[in-house]
Amino acid sequence: MSTPTRYRLDELAARFKLELRGDGARMIAGVGTLATATSGQLSFLANSRYRTQLDGSHAGAIVLRADDAVHCAGACLIAADPYVAFAKIAALFDPTPAAVPGVHPSAVIAADARVDASASIGPHCVIEAGAIIDSGAVLGPHCVIGVDCAVGAQSRLVARVTLVTRVTLGKRVLVHPGAVIGADGFGLAFERDASDHGGWIKVPQLGGVRIGDDCEIGANTTIDRGAIEDTVLEEDVRLDNQIQIAHNVHIGAHTAMAGCAAVAGSAKIGRYCLIGGGAGILGHLNVADGVTITARALVTHSIHSAGEYSSGVPLQESRQWRRNAARFKHLDDLARRVQAIEKELESKESKS
Amino acid sequence: MSTPTRYRLDELAARFKLELRGDGARMIAGVGTLATATSGQLSFLANSRYRTQLDGSHAGAIVLRADDAVHCAGACLIAADPYVAFAKIAALFDPTPAAVPGVHPSAVIAADARVDASASIGPHCVIEAGAIIDSGAVLGPHCVIGVDCAVGAQSRLVARVTLVTRVTLGKRVLVHPGAVIGADGFGLAFERDASDHGGWIKVPQLGGVRIGDDCEIGANTTIDRGAIEDTVLEEDVRLDNQIQIAHNVHIGAHTAMAGCAAVAGSAKIGRYCLIGGGAGILGHLNVADGVTITARALVTHSIHSAGEYSSGVPLQESRQWRRNAARFKHLDDLARRVQAIEKELESKESKS
Amino acid sequence: MSTPTRYRLDELAARFKLELRGDGARMIAGVGTLATATSGQLSFLANSRYRTQLDGSHAGAIVLRADDAVHCAGACLIAADPYVAFAKIAALFDPTPAAVPGVHPSAVIAADARVDASASIGPHCVIEAGAIIDSGAVLGPHCVIGVDCAVGAQSRLVARVTLVTRVTLGKRVLVHPGAVIGADGFGLAFERDASDHGGWIKVPQLGGVRIGDDCEIGANTTIDRGAIEDTVLEEDVRLDNQIQIAHNVHIGAHTAMAGCAAVAGSAKIGRYCLIGGGAGILGHLNVADGVTITARALVTHSIHSAGEYSSGVPLQESRQWRRNAARFKHLDDLARRVQAIEKELESKESKS
Repeated sequence: MSTPTRYRLDELAARFKLELRGDGARMIAGVGTLATATSGQLSFLANSRYRTQLDGSHAGAIVLRADDAVHCAGACLIAADPYVAFAKIAALFDPTPAAVPGVHPSAVIAADARVDASASIGPHCVIEAGAIIDSGAVLGPHCVIGVDCAVGAQSRLVARVTLVTRVTLGKRVLVHPGAVIGADGFGLAFERDASDHGGWIKVPQLGGVRIGDDCEIGANTTIDRGAIEDTVLEEDVRLDNQIQIAHNVHIGAHTAMAGCAAVAGSAKIGRYCLIGGGAGILGHLNVADGVTITARALVTHSIHSAGEYSSGVPLQESRQWRRNAARFKHLDDLARRVQAIEKELESKESKS
Repeated sequence: MSTPTRYRLDELAARFKLELRGDGARMIAGVGTLATATSGQLSFLANSRYRTQLDGSHAGAIVLRADDAVHCAGACLIAADPYVAFAKIAALFDPTPAAVPGVHPSAVIAADARVDASASIGPHCVIEAGAIIDSGAVLGPHCVIGVDCAVGAQSRLVARVTLVTRVTLGKRVLVHPGAVIGADGFGLAFERDASDHGGWIKVPQLGGVRIGDDCEIGANTTIDRGAIEDTVLEEDVRLDNQIQIAHNVHIGAHTAMAGCAAVAGSAKIGRYCLIGGGAGILGHLNVADGVTITARALVTHSIHSAGEYSSGVPLQESRQWRRNAARFKHLDDLARRVQAIEKELESKESKS
Repeated sequence: MSTPTRYRLDELAARFKLELRGDGARMIAGVGTLATATSGQLSFLANSRYRTQLDGSHAGAIVLRADDAVHCAGACLIAADPYVAFAKIAALFDPTPAAVPGVHPSAVIAADARVDASASIGPHCVIEAGAIIDSGAVLGPHCVIGVDCAVGAQSRLVARVTLVTRVTLGKRVLVHPGAVIGADGFGLAFERDASDHGGWIKVPQLGGVRIGDDCEIGANTTIDRGAIEDTVLEEDVRLDNQIQIAHNVHIGAHTAMAGCAAVAGSAKIGRYCLIGGGAGILGHLNVADGVTITARALVTHSIHSAGEYSSGVPLQESRQWRRNAARFKHLDDLARRVQAIEKELESKESKS
């Protein structure tokens, strides 16, 4: 597809303000892991624990910390944070072709939608009434931009993204395929009838969704729109795949969530939080700034201070686990029996 | 988009059969929360615990219970169930534009599919052989209606809904984007070979899916079709986003499930159940009518009577949690030791 | 849709090399369960425990084991593995219409993509630059095949499948609607700024996804592409719906995963594993061949030998559960107290 890109190592050093050690004339044409990189590729060592991997590496150059560099026989680039430096350099080798401005003839665009001339609208996209697509925005194939939605400048909807209604994306937002943003929140009122039965009445979802600049939304992730007010993601929030964000949730800036996490309605999550894969947060709770939730933990009460929180029980061979799990059903009883024993021993003690 | 709608408060009272207190001439043009509603908006108080919020509210009118009304200085509407009344009134202010009957020219419709003249078929929809779209049904952009599927009257598929094959939707069914109904159930038979290895043989999934009237299916939810017989949702079942319903599941009327819940094959769930977010139900189990499952609980045995059921352990600061979790691995041993102590004390008792 | 298919029972016996008992001239036109099959349908008994169901069955013929056959009054086919035999016979009655080779006029295909003349490309498909669609492959409506992706011979993408970039599917791969394969892995580096705050830097995801022959990928399942190297599924891997496979995961041949399972980055899962519904596997772990993980268990450490593994606590009536769960928060303390009691009793013992 794309023309192979090559950079001199000293050129990379200068561009990313990194100290160069070794042969600056070396040409770098891609990246690789320490184990697989060839002499034309750049690799990185982010964690000194893996320092022994430097020896066997055939990488043309390695990005690493100064104190690891002494163990590196070949060319290297010194970085305070090698993973950050590597991420920036590697972006040069991303072969994703640049999108061509313009609207594909198969796209269907409402008369009163506004699409900037510098935006790129892919095949079979549908842009509905009142929608706005800002400068440099890229919509891959099969995106649906619903009524009154807005896609900010330089945002990219990779393919098959659905913005349902009243969704506003900031600048440089990246959304992966299958994501659905702005569907109805799950609002229901149970109307009891005379016979004490009844059925569900839908509560109309009149709010929208606001997504800040530099957010990333994973594949098949869903973010519902608010019931009355908006569901909000502040800037630089990063959501992995298959995450569920219910209506009226508010997520603070720079918070990241791993795959399959879920947040129930009206929860408020702070800034700089790390939510592990499959973790859950119940509705109407508050989670402070700087909180880490480990994978699969369920947050059942508000968290008022930064720190790491967990729930769950450890994996065991099933036969052992079954015995322990069976005892859990009587844990309260067990605790009471221990208390009774303690009391008994104490009373004996005092008698003797 | 839409013309702003306004109603006199006494008009709303009459329409929804609610008692009016205060200025009936007041014009209501929308809804808001107690905290944010303006003088032209209606709000509601469903839970008397939040009664103190009445004081600070600038809402033009408030829907509430009679015993809360005495604490309300302004105009109000008295309702036995304020949340139900609010839901009905708020629907008046839903700006979703009405769909226009007719078929968008970019839609692809099989020659022998039947599409009612009053139905609305959006851009890029695909309707395959033998499919039926009934009167007043609305298919938003990018819906795929597979072979031998039927969409009942007044149903609405918001956008990008896939009905794979042999799926029947009742009347007034609402399906959100990304939902996939009628994909193959996960049926596999393992064929062992001579060397005691082998591979998987696919079990064809010959059943369908039947969805009752007034059901709602959330974004990116999946409902597989049955292996031999059908997967069934009775009327008024409400499923949130990212729910997984396996083949041959049967869900009773008026049951609601929150986001990310999952039901394994051939489970039978009763009527009027409430299944919490991320809860799971194992295959071939029965769950009685009126059962509530709390968030993230895993149902591992059939439930024969109404009530609330839970599993899981509480969230803790990770350092504390790790200590407790480590002990869980030896809980059976701990219980045995307590039994031994009790025996020892008892035998001493009898000796003394 | 399809012409009804009928087979003589002795014809089925010969075709699948099964021993026939009873009337071989009987015509079979479909399949059913023991409870519902009619005299023109074939049923099966895979588990001898349900042998009593043979009595009431009206099935025209039953596939079963030799030792169950003596209890069967009617016609039957004897199979070493009745479920496998049934799966193969039932496939004859699958009414899914064969796809017609050719490209639907609404499909959009890049000039340099290669589509075999025997492939079938459905309405509104988009095939991007450098993509290859091999012989006999079927793309249902709304599939997107991204840059440099390849779909192997006889593979079938049912509808609305997205292959994002650098994805290679082997032969006879079956992918269900809503699946997204090859989206960016969730790679982020946190760049701390001078004030000890900062933000996320995206790590470009330069690898691809390789899916082996005979794999099946469920509806709305997501499989991310690798960061540097590829995410890999070996042959005959079977994934149910809504599964999340992170970047650089490697799954061994013949492993099957039930709905909503999730595997974090760089985990390596062996061959012939069975991963239960909603189970999770943390990043960078190894799971040996032949491991079974029960539903909802979380794998938090590598597993080095075949066997069955579990985690979680049992479902209980919520009132009881709450008492036990509260005690879990102090389980370490309880264990210490039991140790103290044991010590006390021991010291008394030694004194007396």
